[in-house]
Amino acid sequence: MNDKHLLASDFKLTILGSSSALPTSERNPTAQVLNIRERFFLIDCGEGTQIQLRKYRARLGKINQIFISHLHGDHFYGLFGLLSTFSLLGRKHPLQIFSPPGLKKILLQVFTSTQDGLSYPIEFNELKNAAPEWIFENDFLKVMAIPMKHRIACYGFKFTEKEHLYNLNKSAIQQAKLTIPEIHAARSGEDIVRENGRIIPNKQLILGRRKARTYVYYADTAYHDEWISEVAGADLLYHEATFLEEKKDFAHQTGHSTTLQAAEFAQKAGVAKLIIGHFSSRYKNLTPFLEETQSIFPHVELAEDGKSFEIPCKWEE
Amino acid sequence: MNDKHLLASDFKLTILGSSSALPTSERNPTAQVLNIRERFFLIDCGEGTQIQLRKYRARLGKINQIFISHLHGDHFYGLFGLLSTFSLLGRKHPLQIFSPPGLKKILLQVFTSTQDGLSYPIEFNELKNAAPEWIFENDFLKVMAIPMKHRIACYGFKFTEKEHLYNLNKSAIQQAKLTIPEIHAARSGEDIVRENGRIIPNKQLILGRRKARTYVYYADTAYHDEWISEVAGADLLYHEATFLEEKKDFAHQTGHSTTLQAAEFAQKAGVAKLIIGHFSSRYKNLTPFLEETQSIFPHVELAEDGKSFEIPCKWEE
Repeated sequence: MNDKHLLASDFKLTILGSSSALPTSERNPTAQVLNIRERFFLIDCGEGTQIQLRKYRARLGKINQIFISHLHGDHFYGLFGLLSTFSLLGRKHPLQIFSPPGLKKILLQVFTSTQDGLSYPIEFNELKNAAPEWIFENDFLKVMAIPMKHRIACYGFKFTEKEHLYNLNKSAIQQAKLTIPEIHAARSGEDIVRENGRIIPNKQLILGRRKARTYVYYADTAYHDEWISEVAGADLLYHEATFLEEKKDFAHQTGHSTTLQAAEFAQKAGVAKLIIGHFSSRYKNLTPFLEETQSIFPHVELAEDGKSFEIPCKWEE
Repeated sequence: MNDKHLLASDFKLTILGSSSALPTSERNPTAQVLNIRERFFLIDCGEGTQIQLRKYRARLGKINQIFISHLHGDHFYGLFGLLSTFSLLGRKHPLQIFSPPGLKKILLQVFTSTQDGLSYPIEFNELKNAAPEWIFENDFLKVMAIPMKHRIACYGFKFTEKEHLYNLNKSAIQQAKLTIPEIHAARSGEDIVRENGRIIPNKQLILGRRKARTYVYYADTAYHDEWISEVAGADLLYHEATFLEEKKDFAHQTGHSTTLQAAEFAQKAGVAKLIIGHFSSRYKNLTPFLEETQSIFPHVELAEDGKSFEIPCKWEE
């Protein structure tokens, strides 16, 4: 792992759509892209997502995983166009899609009927877990699917960096004359045990390491804190807030949340920062969303199409 | 018919998308809306069409007919979102969709799988005609489907106003003491035959009438003049020109046209004005499209997202 790549901008979320089911001329349906080290993880894919991805300069060829929360149209109708575009661009490498069951059948029907064969394979991963479960990992990231409380099967997603390696204290390393395998062990946080029984405590060899960062996407859902321990301490939380508090009953009926519910959840989970979004098209002015949420949880921002949120690197204390 | 409604803006085409299969950040996939007397006729419906319709202030509740040229995704992937939106807005009145066969199956699969029932009925009209055929009419308009020459079944559409009624010469009407049925007959262009055998020639009773206007949408297609007589004399023609002339062979292979082919067709058909569009995303600068086409047919404009074209009222000569 090369620390040169760990810049402040290497964990950046961009909102591609902040509207709920009915888009407006300013707010597209839901989609977000998480850029971690120039790998782009797409979260939901409402209509127009491919246009938004181009507009905000995501690299289409670097999207290899798409996470779809649920099969309401405003969260996946952009897939048809995006997957076709991948094909028209000559993509060969596989694409992984994670979603509740049913998506494969829809996509096959559409692509078969239109005689648009795709140039690359899709690996469909159907989510059926009733409790939080890790569903993906690569060399630097793990993703968990967390069941939401919505009208149909729906999952939130937790994106967590894997533990970073420790930076080494070079003079201590040289003094102790560490071998290559010992250096790898030290970077991973292990004490070094020599053949003669001598132990070099890890703390003598290292300077510290960066904290693993976590982003949680929590939508669409009514207020739902059964799995809140999985969200605890996250650096960044997106929680839907489709309605203002006055529509609390209607929010509950439709499987959505209000401002105060998002705020209460963020506060209980002790996250560093909250983004609210998925705003109902009935609201033109979003200032009341911000004000209501801030009354409980001050570290909140509104989702806006094109807005980015970076989680900067920090060192462990 | 009330002539007050026949303003210059009562036959207006708005381009919602001017790109071919791959959209760009400036050009959406194909869609157009034809506003005739505040009734909105949608022609093709690429991804993002509902956003474009809102942006350019088409009245969604006044769209009752949608004409889909063919089942390549860039011409209909916007239907899923648009039809859902109609439903979310509480639409009750039926929607007519005209398209080559296969669309119904796709839409039913999507709406069934997502458990998104629609609040209104759809009347699917499958086009199978091998020669031009009238497929729709109302009190002021007729629409013809014209087979194109593309890789899959594809139709262009001709929108023609019905013949207008004649304006009456009021003093001649009073002098002749026309009855109400005679007035209707005169407006329709008939001579009046009295019981005593006296004939009042229509020309003595009328002042003239407005010309019926015609717009033809001709895409996607390779050069194809088999049905050019149906396009002859149109006020406005949209002809696809996916490629510059240098890509003539590739255009032919893929069932598309070049600038010069669009120009040649417009010239042979003797239309008043030509719009070219469906530009390949490989071209950033469209000026060469305009220049090449103008070298054969001067009355040409480029399709641009958001651009409108009005066909003004004219009197018959």
